[in-house]
Amino acid sequence: MGELLGVAVLGAGHMGADHVRRLDRVVSGARVAAVADPDTARAEETAAGIEGVSVHADATAALDAPGVDAVLVASPGPAHEEALLAAFARGLPVLCEKPMVPDPAGALRVVEAEARLGRRLAQIGFMRRYDAGYLRLKALLDGGRLGRPLMLHCTHRNVSSPAHFTSHMLVNSSVSHEIDAARWLLGQELTAVTVLRPAPSAGAPEGLADPQFVLLETERGALVDVEVFVNCGFGYQVRCEAVCEAGSARIGEEEAMSVTTRDGARQEVPQDCLVRFADAYDREVQTWVDATRGGRVTGPSAWDGYAASTVAEAGVRALETGRRTSVALAPRPALYGGAGR
Amino acid sequence: MGELLGVAVLGAGHMGADHVRRLDRVVSGARVAAVADPDTARAEETAAGIEGVSVHADATAALDAPGVDAVLVASPGPAHEEALLAAFARGLPVLCEKPMVPDPAGALRVVEAEARLGRRLAQIGFMRRYDAGYLRLKALLDGGRLGRPLMLHCTHRNVSSPAHFTSHMLVNSSVSHEIDAARWLLGQELTAVTVLRPAPSAGAPEGLADPQFVLLETERGALVDVEVFVNCGFGYQVRCEAVCEAGSARIGEEEAMSVTTRDGARQEVPQDCLVRFADAYDREVQTWVDATRGGRVTGPSAWDGYAASTVAEAGVRALETGRRTSVALAPRPALYGGAGR
Amino acid sequence: MGELLGVAVLGAGHMGADHVRRLDRVVSGARVAAVADPDTARAEETAAGIEGVSVHADATAALDAPGVDAVLVASPGPAHEEALLAAFARGLPVLCEKPMVPDPAGALRVVEAEARLGRRLAQIGFMRRYDAGYLRLKALLDGGRLGRPLMLHCTHRNVSSPAHFTSHMLVNSSVSHEIDAARWLLGQELTAVTVLRPAPSAGAPEGLADPQFVLLETERGALVDVEVFVNCGFGYQVRCEAVCEAGSARIGEEEAMSVTTRDGARQEVPQDCLVRFADAYDREVQTWVDATRGGRVTGPSAWDGYAASTVAEAGVRALETGRRTSVALAPRPALYGGAGR
Amino acid sequence: MGELLGVAVLGAGHMGADHVRRLDRVVSGARVAAVADPDTARAEETAAGIEGVSVHADATAALDAPGVDAVLVASPGPAHEEALLAAFARGLPVLCEKPMVPDPAGALRVVEAEARLGRRLAQIGFMRRYDAGYLRLKALLDGGRLGRPLMLHCTHRNVSSPAHFTSHMLVNSSVSHEIDAARWLLGQELTAVTVLRPAPSAGAPEGLADPQFVLLETERGALVDVEVFVNCGFGYQVRCEAVCEAGSARIGEEEAMSVTTRDGARQEVPQDCLVRFADAYDREVQTWVDATRGGRVTGPSAWDGYAASTVAEAGVRALETGRRTSVALAPRPALYGGAGR
Repeated sequence: MGELLGVAVLGAGHMGADHVRRLDRVVSGARVAAVADPDTARAEETAAGIEGVSVHADATAALDAPGVDAVLVASPGPAHEEALLAAFARGLPVLCEKPMVPDPAGALRVVEAEARLGRRLAQIGFMRRYDAGYLRLKALLDGGRLGRPLMLHCTHRNVSSPAHFTSHMLVNSSVSHEIDAARWLLGQELTAVTVLRPAPSAGAPEGLADPQFVLLETERGALVDVEVFVNCGFGYQVRCEAVCEAGSARIGEEEAMSVTTRDGARQEVPQDCLVRFADAYDREVQTWVDATRGGRVTGPSAWDGYAASTVAEAGVRALETGRRTSVALAPRPALYGGAGR
Repeated sequence: MGELLGVAVLGAGHMGADHVRRLDRVVSGARVAAVADPDTARAEETAAGIEGVSVHADATAALDAPGVDAVLVASPGPAHEEALLAAFARGLPVLCEKPMVPDPAGALRVVEAEARLGRRLAQIGFMRRYDAGYLRLKALLDGGRLGRPLMLHCTHRNVSSPAHFTSHMLVNSSVSHEIDAARWLLGQELTAVTVLRPAPSAGAPEGLADPQFVLLETERGALVDVEVFVNCGFGYQVRCEAVCEAGSARIGEEEAMSVTTRDGARQEVPQDCLVRFADAYDREVQTWVDATRGGRVTGPSAWDGYAASTVAEAGVRALETGRRTSVALAPRPALYGGAGR
Repeated sequence: MGELLGVAVLGAGHMGADHVRRLDRVVSGARVAAVADPDTARAEETAAGIEGVSVHADATAALDAPGVDAVLVASPGPAHEEALLAAFARGLPVLCEKPMVPDPAGALRVVEAEARLGRRLAQIGFMRRYDAGYLRLKALLDGGRLGRPLMLHCTHRNVSSPAHFTSHMLVNSSVSHEIDAARWLLGQELTAVTVLRPAPSAGAPEGLADPQFVLLETERGALVDVEVFVNCGFGYQVRCEAVCEAGSARIGEEEAMSVTTRDGARQEVPQDCLVRFADAYDREVQTWVDATRGGRVTGPSAWDGYAASTVAEAGVRALETGRRTSVALAPRPALYGGAGR
Repeated sequence: MGELLGVAVLGAGHMGADHVRRLDRVVSGARVAAVADPDTARAEETAAGIEGVSVHADATAALDAPGVDAVLVASPGPAHEEALLAAFARGLPVLCEKPMVPDPAGALRVVEAEARLGRRLAQIGFMRRYDAGYLRLKALLDGGRLGRPLMLHCTHRNVSSPAHFTSHMLVNSSVSHEIDAARWLLGQELTAVTVLRPAPSAGAPEGLADPQFVLLETERGALVDVEVFVNCGFGYQVRCEAVCEAGSARIGEEEAMSVTTRDGARQEVPQDCLVRFADAYDREVQTWVDATRGGRVTGPSAWDGYAASTVAEAGVRALETGRRTSVALAPRPALYGGAGR
């Protein structure tokens, strides 16, 4: 495949720094060509020791730096729209962390811009599509052996939420993963959202509606329920059970080593998303690098990013009103295939 | 403990015959003294080979037969009210299969009659309270180590539904087990019901809304969700996960023997309720016999039977209207303790 | 079935008292007619509150007490031979706790005495044959779907050993369960024993060779290995994996409730044999009572008791010498079928 | 870290081609600089499409090719000694597939040659040390929480053996993985081997002693048993249970997705070593590349390779004689730390 793919990484926070490390030391066939962050000290630190990398305060400058063949957007969500449009203007392939664009209107502008280009340049960072368990489940459902899916039961638990995490963010940040996973697994758009609020846990910060129970309905009548509990205190658990006409299937129950002592038989529960999905992140970026070097775009599309933002936004309204809330999507441009494809 | 407890069994159908066998051949300390069924041929057949038993077409006659110390009601639901009131009139302890009385008004009349007596005579056949798994979960929740329960996630699946099973019966027959179990496990009354209807399975009879997804709310803000799927085709599965402030616990996942062949690793799934809960039925009746011989009443009460009927009836309305439906209980007589006690 | 079966229980220690409770309060169709123990105070205490029971210092006197139809032998092993021969002399059916007779010569005398009678009266208390897991495994192996069994891997762990437990007893007391189970599951006699001694655990009493690793060979070339570890400190674990030509099967891995807290996902491990095999003991005695009332003998035979004693005795020599030791069985009387039948 | 590490890959068979792919497309920081195979057509095919690679019939020529910084030996075992000595002569770091050298005498010559160099250049490809499960178990044992290890119970099963697989190879090829893993996990040398031969499976080729049951003893009295069954027919299973003074731990039991249908609950069993240990191979090679670029050697040493060959050779004699066979190791050069380090 010849030359290494030179990647400009926008954002040098937790996620951006992790992607820089991944591109530099884990993924084959790529190099970090530029790092951009308004906090240039942080950008410098992230880029330290990497040969031939340039550091920028300004995202656009990074796109124009020498050796940049592609872009990885890991800056905060509000900066994504501008970054994506700038990448489109330069014809640069781009892997954009989720949420693609937090507000549905902005997300739709990205979709329309790419549709005007007439070819796909953007892949959105829904990394669960690269997790071994989700891939197995997707293959099983698509294979048809279990018949039509009727329900998905999902669990999404974190040890504790970051400071300033709001009740809205359980829906539009945490559950956005399940929103995309449900669309992808079922190959259907979501049409309505309901959010229930059990009495909050004493383990959650004052004022945070945690846990929540989110119900998603699909265009062909499947039902998706999600327990989201971001201060459960005991671990990072992501589970999914698909109930179909001829059977059910579960993922996320895999146990690591089992240790038996006088306290009983015990299995470790992963504490962190980056641990649980480390392989998925690696596979996501490696797949993107391989496809990009081969001139292809294969992952979740800007349409998937737009649909997720729109469903999440309806979910926030459902949380506020306590009512079932319909999801209204714009017409899908021909550039994009069916839901979740 | 001296003399064997003489039991009159009302009803010689599937359930009644099973209880006759249990009292005759499994349970210690009891004997079947009388069997009643309008179909006397069926009653004769059920009583065949049991020494000293009398057979009756009429339930009341059976209560007055010689040697009857207590009553087990296993006749169809609509006959329960009369049987319970007749037992009360004679001061006979009674174990009554669920539903105690299908309609809430009749159930309330039973509660009021027993309250007037001023002492408990009735135990209702919610046998899950005697299952080893449920007992473990109850002890764990009551022990307080996991903190306050926030949610229960329940699964209730049958291979296939009997002929003439209606969409209402998924709620007022199948889910009535979860209604009682939730009240008992949480020690709280249920205050509202919502029923969602995913697109029905192709494996369900034409016109049956199967599966359904039932949401129950409790007086202190816990949330209970129940997947009920009575034509799932693959087994009888009853699972419950309690999510609490300091941890979660699951029952109903126990695996029997694991067999690995070229088709993968496989565990048998029980196909039938009477298999899965055989031990619970045995323990329920043995406990009732032991308590009754000792002059005590310990199990689920007539109030529990009334509450279950009332919630089930609200559930049926919720299914019909598609709306969240409140549950209105009569004031609880002093004879009965708190919810689920 | 009419009259209750009157049982004389010989021995009022831990095991005998538990069987008295079981016959009196759990099992259907039987009553305790007599209790015998040289320590008559203990016998009196065990019999307290049971109607119509007589108490004896002498076992033979108990056999002759009024109302005795059958015998349950739960006295110490060295007293078994005399008790069995006395029961045979009276034509009384007898359920004898294991070991039937500890020394092979005495065990053979019992076999010969019963063979002279020309009909079976004795059943030996190998209760694992009544455990749900073992029954499932036996049915699977007999069904032939997995082909011929090649190996059994067994684990036998106790929290701690009783005082005065010797290195020999790991073989002739603990492993005697696996000796019978292997004969029964495979339907083959055992032909050789080897015992390995890893460095003993610091958790074992000074001088006790614990754990041990026992290898059993069968007449048709199957291999059985048993880890026996009676001071493992963490629980009572009995597991068995059968490896066959077309697959493998495991029992004893069933998990009770799973609880997840900040310490990980945890399952309780049973701490005691009477807990783990409570159902098996109940089923064993109920089955024996039912068969005896019906005039039949169905369980493990005196031959099974003799074979177990002989293999155990070879195992003790193998432990002492460190060498593979052959098992020499007397010719099998025609009264008994094949191995483990 | 600058320049990519140029690697000469010796051998273009199944394993070599997989390593070429890995270095070219999975691992970060390396490039394939040369490929050697006596079958140059196969070497050409393996190298096709890789930029700047040279192809050689002769291994030594490949070591001298331009851009070669390190060597990966994946040629057949008998060619390893010469390749290792040639790499040592040139001061090239080398990752050598197992067995390092099949015969103990040759393996000892490699150890002595490296000891004369006075610095480590060789890492042996015992990839289980890089598997997530084994790493967890190693960390647990080293942490000391479970006390001293007493026994390891190991299972090693393959669907079917390659053509020409001999009874010896179950020991010196298959079990060699457990030999190294046991030394590494326990940090002890192995001192004796016994091999038992159950009646062979009808599923094994005529004349192949399959399964076998291998017993390994360690210098401080721990016992390791290994079921090796290379024609089990149903999957690739590698499991290990460590039994310690204060608890036990198991790996290799992780279940992928669980699917429940009318045939029961089922989990897929991996069919192939390269699937089961794909991550371990990737991690092994990435770690080697990273360490080599940093001027370090970190993995299993030539001493580990020598010890494994010596134990395997004793195992083959034990299989032939049916007797417990001692292992005699040469004195360990100071260059190498303790067992398995």
